[in-house]
Amino acid sequence: MERQVKYLLPESEMPRHWYNVIADLPSPPPPPLHPGTGQPVGPDDLAPLFPGALIAQEVTGERHVAIPDEVLDVYRLWRPTPLLRARRLERDLGTPARIYYKYEGGSPAGSHKPNTAVPQAYYNAAEGVTKLTTETGAGQWGSALAFASAVFGLQLEVWMVRASYDQKPYRKLLMETYGATVHPSPSPVTNAGRAVLAAHPDSTGSLGIAISEAVEMAAADPDTRYSLGSVLNHVLMHQTIIGEEALKQLADAGDTPDVIVGCTGGGSNFGGLAFPFLREKLAGRINPVIRAVEPAACPSFTRGVYAYDFGDTAGMTPLLKMHTLGHEFIPDPIHAGGLRYHGMSPLLSHIYELGLIEAVAKPQSECFAAGLRFARTEGIVPAPEPTHAVAACIEEALRCKETGEEKVILTALCGHGLLDLTAYGDYMSGQMRDLQLSDKAIEEALAGLPAGV
Amino acid sequence: MERQVKYLLPESEMPRHWYNVIADLPSPPPPPLHPGTGQPVGPDDLAPLFPGALIAQEVTGERHVAIPDEVLDVYRLWRPTPLLRARRLERDLGTPARIYYKYEGGSPAGSHKPNTAVPQAYYNAAEGVTKLTTETGAGQWGSALAFASAVFGLQLEVWMVRASYDQKPYRKLLMETYGATVHPSPSPVTNAGRAVLAAHPDSTGSLGIAISEAVEMAAADPDTRYSLGSVLNHVLMHQTIIGEEALKQLADAGDTPDVIVGCTGGGSNFGGLAFPFLREKLAGRINPVIRAVEPAACPSFTRGVYAYDFGDTAGMTPLLKMHTLGHEFIPDPIHAGGLRYHGMSPLLSHIYELGLIEAVAKPQSECFAAGLRFARTEGIVPAPEPTHAVAACIEEALRCKETGEEKVILTALCGHGLLDLTAYGDYMSGQMRDLQLSDKAIEEALAGLPAGV
Repeated sequence: MERQVKYLLPESEMPRHWYNVIADLPSPPPPPLHPGTGQPVGPDDLAPLFPGALIAQEVTGERHVAIPDEVLDVYRLWRPTPLLRARRLERDLGTPARIYYKYEGGSPAGSHKPNTAVPQAYYNAAEGVTKLTTETGAGQWGSALAFASAVFGLQLEVWMVRASYDQKPYRKLLMETYGATVHPSPSPVTNAGRAVLAAHPDSTGSLGIAISEAVEMAAADPDTRYSLGSVLNHVLMHQTIIGEEALKQLADAGDTPDVIVGCTGGGSNFGGLAFPFLREKLAGRINPVIRAVEPAACPSFTRGVYAYDFGDTAGMTPLLKMHTLGHEFIPDPIHAGGLRYHGMSPLLSHIYELGLIEAVAKPQSECFAAGLRFARTEGIVPAPEPTHAVAACIEEALRCKETGEEKVILTALCGHGLLDLTAYGDYMSGQMRDLQLSDKAIEEALAGLPAGV
Repeated sequence: MERQVKYLLPESEMPRHWYNVIADLPSPPPPPLHPGTGQPVGPDDLAPLFPGALIAQEVTGERHVAIPDEVLDVYRLWRPTPLLRARRLERDLGTPARIYYKYEGGSPAGSHKPNTAVPQAYYNAAEGVTKLTTETGAGQWGSALAFASAVFGLQLEVWMVRASYDQKPYRKLLMETYGATVHPSPSPVTNAGRAVLAAHPDSTGSLGIAISEAVEMAAADPDTRYSLGSVLNHVLMHQTIIGEEALKQLADAGDTPDVIVGCTGGGSNFGGLAFPFLREKLAGRINPVIRAVEPAACPSFTRGVYAYDFGDTAGMTPLLKMHTLGHEFIPDPIHAGGLRYHGMSPLLSHIYELGLIEAVAKPQSECFAAGLRFARTEGIVPAPEPTHAVAACIEEALRCKETGEEKVILTALCGHGLLDLTAYGDYMSGQMRDLQLSDKAIEEALAGLPAGV
């Protein structure tokens, strides 16, 4: 008997539009504010950092935004991505649930990040920009933007958090293979970096410092712009191609989702999968539970507050209304570097406040146990970030085993873990720790929230 | 305008048979000989090392061998694999040639090796074997067999060449993530390993020593068998699923191949791609040039002899009639570890002698230059082994640019290089050397060929 496990779409059925969920929400998310004036930020404030097309996408109310042909041409290298039924995992769990995962690890950089890196590079190149700057933590975003920059002939300089730069030489080499220049952050190249190095010559860096360096360099050169890999509205919109494809593929499989789970750091992978299904839910056509899974070490949804806060540690960005642990919060050095962000996408935060999605937090050892089980059944080694989603899938599937419910569970496996295998090594050798995040630590970080907004 | 780059097959069109090219050759390849008697090796000689089904496949004259349902079920996790048109590379080269590549790097272990690892694990499990042993150099084969063993519930012990064990921690971790036990070779676990360590406590090992250790452990336990990832007839046959799929996909693209190129180490990737096209060529339906590309540092086709030789350095295996540099030949430590084999598949060697394929050798710096160019245009970072195929594609495409010929070039990109990025780092930093292989070194190694056969 044929037992289909892979649902592919032909290139001809690849979506031609990104979906802007704001058009279908009962209210729009609160706007970003200028930290000096307390007034909403306008396009002119953003022009030194982003090209006009992306600023327009950030604030558009249109339901659908056409994907340029030049972007579709690059997407075609790996898209549409497959939707897979996790039959071997189901059997291993003994669950009556049906588990589907949308696999984004087949992209050139090995994650979902190229879905937004490619249009960001395209729009910059189209407006005459010659160079991009960005920061990267674990390196997934940096390598995605390095690939996209190579394709559109842009120079790229990446500030990579020093600790990752030293510990993840493969990610650095991947960026260099694509032609990017990679600086450890703090670097002697920028004022921000030099100031940190003067005070702390041995600093291992932080995402906040790296953002400051990349922003400083972009703002100083009229031909250079800055690029961000998550959090913002246009980034989440670019990722909706994941969910649009999955919607068609799950229909091909003859199923509708009861539970959708995804991991959240800045929120782009989760939003990308969930928003098209949320549209269908708001229209009354389906009624899935939509659940974000965040690391217990950085629980912005489940233990943070909904408030205006800075997007970076140094407080240089506009104020964003979001779920946050406070911009001074420094998460434990867990292996899921892509989820170590103090805040959460303002758009997802707003949707959470509207009660349209729910959230849970998972300790990393449970997540790596799930990742190992997934690798040994499905064959794919998940990146540390989506092990959180896999852990939540397994939890739900085991609940179904108890109740006998044949639920349909859908998740996005947003990247493979081949460049993160040392994390699996730590788990297998028993060296992985789950530190308890105290209420006091959160309280202290939240005390640093900007006042008066 | 739609510009298709990816040719997919639905699961329903995945081949249901492997193809045995021997059935269509004008003569069969010479048989392996017992080193003691000089007589052809029989099934009984091989029974301690391989399960009956694989021994039968090694000697079968049947044209097609059915793929078991249990194997198809696992293949479905990543097969059919895509055939891609390298439009961006073509444009970068300014060539009128059309370049297609069959991409096998989307498999769980990141290469074509699972195509044979899965059936090998399946047949062993079906015959009651509980444990496999194998050797691995760079680690591609070991990680593929670790994945396949996890799927069929087999234990696996891998002897990994000490130099790789120390230099490639990610490959070792990948095998362990799949549940395998990995020993550095030489190891204190076997007689063969202890003997080497007694004489050379600091030995960095060799594939020959690792084979001896894996074979010794398999032969000593009736529930354990040994597994080989290339060279043998049944291994090449399992890989023909690559070519069978590519044949359909290239037809979907409306093209027929003029030139087929593939890299050769033991020959399984090349044979897997080429054999179904060779069948069509022998039947007079197409007439492509079929070209093997080997490393200049280990040129068994282009500078070796066609003679009976041992498959391993220590001289423990049956004698194989093959193109060989002599089993005592130790290749330079080039980065393409999968191509560092002194011999060549006896079946491919026979086909080469019949004049049905041709061969060229490439220095590794030319190959890495090609790999970098491929990464920056097509997005995929090729493993060091298929950079040889890419280099030959580019050479052919640039020839077409001069002549104006619109040739159709087909190759197999048999794996990604994400776990080999340090090799790209060496290339980019100018530290890669192309050593000249002297005639004298080959002469000396060939002097060690077994006499009297």
